[in-house]
Amino acid sequence: MSGSSFGTHFKITTWGESHGMGVGAVIDGCPAGLALCEADIQAYLNRRKPGQSKFSTPRKEDDAVQIQSGIFEGRTTGTPISMAVYNKNQRSADYSEIASYYRPGHADYTFDCKYGFRDYRGGGRSSARETIGRVAAGAVAAKLLETAGIGFLSYVRSIGPVEISPEHFDADEIGRNPLYMPDAKAAAKAQEYLQDCMKAQNSSGGIVECIITGVPAGIGEPVFDKLDAQLAKAVFSIGAVKGFEIGDGFDAARATGQENNDAFYYNENGVLCKKTNHAGGILGGISDGSDILLRAAFKPTPSISAVQETVNKNGENITVRVKGRHDPVIVPRAAVVVEAMAALTLADLMLADMGARAGSFADFYRR
Amino acid sequence: MSGSSFGTHFKITTWGESHGMGVGAVIDGCPAGLALCEADIQAYLNRRKPGQSKFSTPRKEDDAVQIQSGIFEGRTTGTPISMAVYNKNQRSADYSEIASYYRPGHADYTFDCKYGFRDYRGGGRSSARETIGRVAAGAVAAKLLETAGIGFLSYVRSIGPVEISPEHFDADEIGRNPLYMPDAKAAAKAQEYLQDCMKAQNSSGGIVECIITGVPAGIGEPVFDKLDAQLAKAVFSIGAVKGFEIGDGFDAARATGQENNDAFYYNENGVLCKKTNHAGGILGGISDGSDILLRAAFKPTPSISAVQETVNKNGENITVRVKGRHDPVIVPRAAVVVEAMAALTLADLMLADMGARAGSFADFYRR
Amino acid sequence: MSGSSFGTHFKITTWGESHGMGVGAVIDGCPAGLALCEADIQAYLNRRKPGQSKFSTPRKEDDAVQIQSGIFEGRTTGTPISMAVYNKNQRSADYSEIASYYRPGHADYTFDCKYGFRDYRGGGRSSARETIGRVAAGAVAAKLLETAGIGFLSYVRSIGPVEISPEHFDADEIGRNPLYMPDAKAAAKAQEYLQDCMKAQNSSGGIVECIITGVPAGIGEPVFDKLDAQLAKAVFSIGAVKGFEIGDGFDAARATGQENNDAFYYNENGVLCKKTNHAGGILGGISDGSDILLRAAFKPTPSISAVQETVNKNGENITVRVKGRHDPVIVPRAAVVVEAMAALTLADLMLADMGARAGSFADFYRR
Amino acid sequence: MSGSSFGTHFKITTWGESHGMGVGAVIDGCPAGLALCEADIQAYLNRRKPGQSKFSTPRKEDDAVQIQSGIFEGRTTGTPISMAVYNKNQRSADYSEIASYYRPGHADYTFDCKYGFRDYRGGGRSSARETIGRVAAGAVAAKLLETAGIGFLSYVRSIGPVEISPEHFDADEIGRNPLYMPDAKAAAKAQEYLQDCMKAQNSSGGIVECIITGVPAGIGEPVFDKLDAQLAKAVFSIGAVKGFEIGDGFDAARATGQENNDAFYYNENGVLCKKTNHAGGILGGISDGSDILLRAAFKPTPSISAVQETVNKNGENITVRVKGRHDPVIVPRAAVVVEAMAALTLADLMLADMGARAGSFADFYRR
Repeated sequence: MSGSSFGTHFKITTWGESHGMGVGAVIDGCPAGLALCEADIQAYLNRRKPGQSKFSTPRKEDDAVQIQSGIFEGRTTGTPISMAVYNKNQRSADYSEIASYYRPGHADYTFDCKYGFRDYRGGGRSSARETIGRVAAGAVAAKLLETAGIGFLSYVRSIGPVEISPEHFDADEIGRNPLYMPDAKAAAKAQEYLQDCMKAQNSSGGIVECIITGVPAGIGEPVFDKLDAQLAKAVFSIGAVKGFEIGDGFDAARATGQENNDAFYYNENGVLCKKTNHAGGILGGISDGSDILLRAAFKPTPSISAVQETVNKNGENITVRVKGRHDPVIVPRAAVVVEAMAALTLADLMLADMGARAGSFADFYRR
Repeated sequence: MSGSSFGTHFKITTWGESHGMGVGAVIDGCPAGLALCEADIQAYLNRRKPGQSKFSTPRKEDDAVQIQSGIFEGRTTGTPISMAVYNKNQRSADYSEIASYYRPGHADYTFDCKYGFRDYRGGGRSSARETIGRVAAGAVAAKLLETAGIGFLSYVRSIGPVEISPEHFDADEIGRNPLYMPDAKAAAKAQEYLQDCMKAQNSSGGIVECIITGVPAGIGEPVFDKLDAQLAKAVFSIGAVKGFEIGDGFDAARATGQENNDAFYYNENGVLCKKTNHAGGILGGISDGSDILLRAAFKPTPSISAVQETVNKNGENITVRVKGRHDPVIVPRAAVVVEAMAALTLADLMLADMGARAGSFADFYRR
Repeated sequence: MSGSSFGTHFKITTWGESHGMGVGAVIDGCPAGLALCEADIQAYLNRRKPGQSKFSTPRKEDDAVQIQSGIFEGRTTGTPISMAVYNKNQRSADYSEIASYYRPGHADYTFDCKYGFRDYRGGGRSSARETIGRVAAGAVAAKLLETAGIGFLSYVRSIGPVEISPEHFDADEIGRNPLYMPDAKAAAKAQEYLQDCMKAQNSSGGIVECIITGVPAGIGEPVFDKLDAQLAKAVFSIGAVKGFEIGDGFDAARATGQENNDAFYYNENGVLCKKTNHAGGILGGISDGSDILLRAAFKPTPSISAVQETVNKNGENITVRVKGRHDPVIVPRAAVVVEAMAALTLADLMLADMGARAGSFADFYRR
Repeated sequence: MSGSSFGTHFKITTWGESHGMGVGAVIDGCPAGLALCEADIQAYLNRRKPGQSKFSTPRKEDDAVQIQSGIFEGRTTGTPISMAVYNKNQRSADYSEIASYYRPGHADYTFDCKYGFRDYRGGGRSSARETIGRVAAGAVAAKLLETAGIGFLSYVRSIGPVEISPEHFDADEIGRNPLYMPDAKAAAKAQEYLQDCMKAQNSSGGIVECIITGVPAGIGEPVFDKLDAQLAKAVFSIGAVKGFEIGDGFDAARATGQENNDAFYYNENGVLCKKTNHAGGILGGISDGSDILLRAAFKPTPSISAVQETVNKNGENITVRVKGRHDPVIVPRAAVVVEAMAALTLADLMLADMGARAGSFADFYRR
């Protein structure tokens, strides 16, 4: 199992390399009858498309998706949905130099250890272009979840040392700045910070935050397939993620039980609510009906043009400058990838849950 | 799928409730020929056994493991290894009160949402006793990994606001204090902090850290089943975990590429090494041969005897004091659970890796 | 993965050996709220219990099942159901002889090839006692299916050359003769045949047939997880099965399309029906609402006391007589095992199907 | 899970419909370093290509395969191999008639029951074109198995009542007649029989046989994932299969133990052999080193142009003639599909087996 499939019920398999023919995804298990067209998916892909600001690689790609199966008369048929995005701009660069050494912070060395050799052109399968398959499939999952009233809000929480401020949080601002930050002031500061990074031939890390609304209580499987565990795996499988949190995350480790426990109460309509949401919407691995809040820490882009020490395959210690078209920061384009992975996880666990509830089996088949 | 299985190649399935007959685990896929006896497993279980200090629940349990299958003449046969720990001390308490309301911070409410009803005695399947199955199975995985030269060092990094200091790090100290901290001073301070918590009918969170040594480069499957993603899921599936990090974790999000990239070099013996280990031993989801470093944030024990607001099933807002035998902090006993989950993850991915490498298939079968 | 798990949604894992402590099964994924007690399971186990006629091994075992988890107040909780049957009669025989050679028709040699050594006492994991776990779990699946109106009729269709006759088919007769044949005359003839076999220190094969009633149309997943493909795997995984058929089976290969196609029609109530059922209730891998008809061919019991040629581990060609307590024919006790595997397959695919239908996802969560 | 994936370690996912854009397969888990090009796959696809004789549909398709990922410099990289075959000849026929009724013997009705609607053009996903993905992936599995010395011989054993005769068996004859029968006389008779069928607007069933040589002893997982059980599922998942046998199959049910047991002996070179092979190369679900022999019964092509009774969606009983381009018999083209499924099964179980053996784990990682 080389790990290119995700999910059990809403299952996707992705394929493709940065400088091969293209990248794609096959979804197996999407329920029949969902209205779906290429534009639904393209809208998601456009959010991760390169070349949209000076903080993104200038590689020009339309990233136009083609649906190749599983749709009939505008609706899903319940059979596999194959989607492909063919590469346009596989620069016929000379990769012989990059083939000869291991870039620091990249997977060059570990791929060679595992497989004995690698497709070194542009990172091959470990390139960020691999995430196109995730986003295309995630768009379908999100469309499915929308039919059950579930929505997503994803944005950049911090870039390097610059963090958004809760007081200035403005969801409408997210689409207005190139860094997808919900705080205009922080976005301005972060742009300055990034300009300095670029001048110094350096790069920056950052944090993506995602809020999921409308998830019914009861989603997630106890023990190993907890909702938070599956979200952790889903998000951590995105290249460059080094940390993951639900709700208060690491702050919870510094808190006391009296501070951290969320009190339940019935509101005036008799609906069970929580006074706070330190738990981030998940108790015992199962959704509690509150908003789900998750956070992912991305390391700085490892491709930098400053001089770095490394080794080549001839057994020599050398210094290199990594050439190529690189993002000085990945998080603005990564926000939609985090959202896609969250959508895929939820779709999978909601389909899993349908068989778990008392009486549902008989009810469903006897109706 | 109710999620009580973990792993694909080294696969475990756990069962059991806090106040039922017992808890257990079945391992399927352990290679044949491994020397294994109950004492190997008991040593791990003893590290999580309750009642060993004043900072642990006084519930008295031997937690004696019984191997029920899969061993012949002291070695594994390659067939399923069934292990059980029968409960001794299922206090015949009156649980009718606890059945009537939802404890804040617990899974009572979400289990009811999902299943329609729940085994409310002591938390049922969402009790910390569920981790016995993980630890028993993890002990077997660790024994298998030991044959390939892999070792684990797990300890408590912080309790509430009290963190160990890198300068005072002393691995030998871990077993000497009841909090499993590798820093005697920090351990003393943390004990004071916990005493105060207990007086205030309160509880504390904390952080567990685990270092894995001897992992060969090349372990982990690219894309969705990255080694870090699988570790994230494994550790996040432990109840009360709210955050997870590899290497520098969230600090990497605040760093630059020049700071965060680990330079490669060949040492005097021509062995490829890294000057630093910000990556925590994993690049592109695959082990790089360095130590693997992971960290898990645990929320404070939600069971506290202070008065809390909550709701009952009659639709009323009420206040409660949660009675029972509870740990004021879970992390000292959780360290071995984190280690067990890490061992299970590695065993699974190493078995997966055996078929991935160039030539391995033909080599194996043409021998 | 050593293959001791079956199913994805209604998933079971079995463990145990013939002469070890016992055998058992863990069910994960049984919906919550199903009324279930040990007597439900015992009724199934009693149908495969040894020692009930002269055509069955005289090994004395109560095969009393113990439910160890997953039930609360008489109903399933949705969490794993662990069941165990402890061995009573592990005769302290001397197995050193059997350890030294490979019994013809048994798995002794192949287990040694695979694992390097084996638990040779009574066949270890490849003993027929392994099927206890299947039957215990199948009893739970059957109870679940019963809530949706699904029933099973399983019986022996032939023993050696003696086959039941369609004209004399009498379902009530099945429980009246020790061979579970629905035809008194054939049963009498088969008993004579078996007496002759036993005198000649020989054994006999036979065929089990199973009719499943009440399955709604639409169950089974297209392509690889067709209902018939999953049934084939399920039944072929029972030791000694060498052939499997659905509907007309091999006879269909000799028929023409005009003979084999089942004509559809609407009956007087407007219900869609089929004039014939050559297809055995499955079209394109999906149930069509007719009875499902399957058939399994079992080879003769390989353990016979007549002299046989074989080899020992010292590299010598030898002759042996296999001692021990053996069934001259396995099919009467195997009928319930076939039924159990069919029930497990259906439960799994029905849970899988719940998410597949148009609109069901949104309907289910919006209701 | 809608069941379009097969295998755990050598895992494939197929997609596509008869009259959509095309069909394809993604392989995940193929070991790195295998020499592979499109011609390797095309050779297999050509064996199932339509229009090669008068006994095959005249639909004209090149079935030219395109590899879209996973190969670098002529070798597999260990990452997903995506392959596509685009449809050329999606006749712009008027399908409105076929949309209105259910063809007898087809999956039209069951797809509608399951999904609520279907892609009715040419059978959609239940068309025989779906097998292109299986054959393309099976070609890769076969190439991998070849590196371990494993080969396949697949042919048509019978068509309707015409069966090959063991005395006239001639493997070289298989490629010489359009029916892929290893017996020239039987092939001639079968052609006459088919001519008569075609005149009568009728169709015929048949049996495919496959011999697998060179499989090492020890492949297959005990209990549920036995080699024969996995082969049964693999082959039964091919549309139109109604029966499956290993070795003597149903004949074993009529035999005695003395007849059926295969005696072991050491040959003059001290190699363990069997005097006969009634078992078909599998004992206890694990390969024994002999040839593996399997057989699949295919029902007659359900599409016939003779008048048939059926129903339409308006609730009316009607008669129809199924138009279109149909094979009067499917087995000649199905032989390579059976072989492909057998190759996929073996590749998957051999990768699973690599981690099962005593000492293999430590040996592999301590090298």
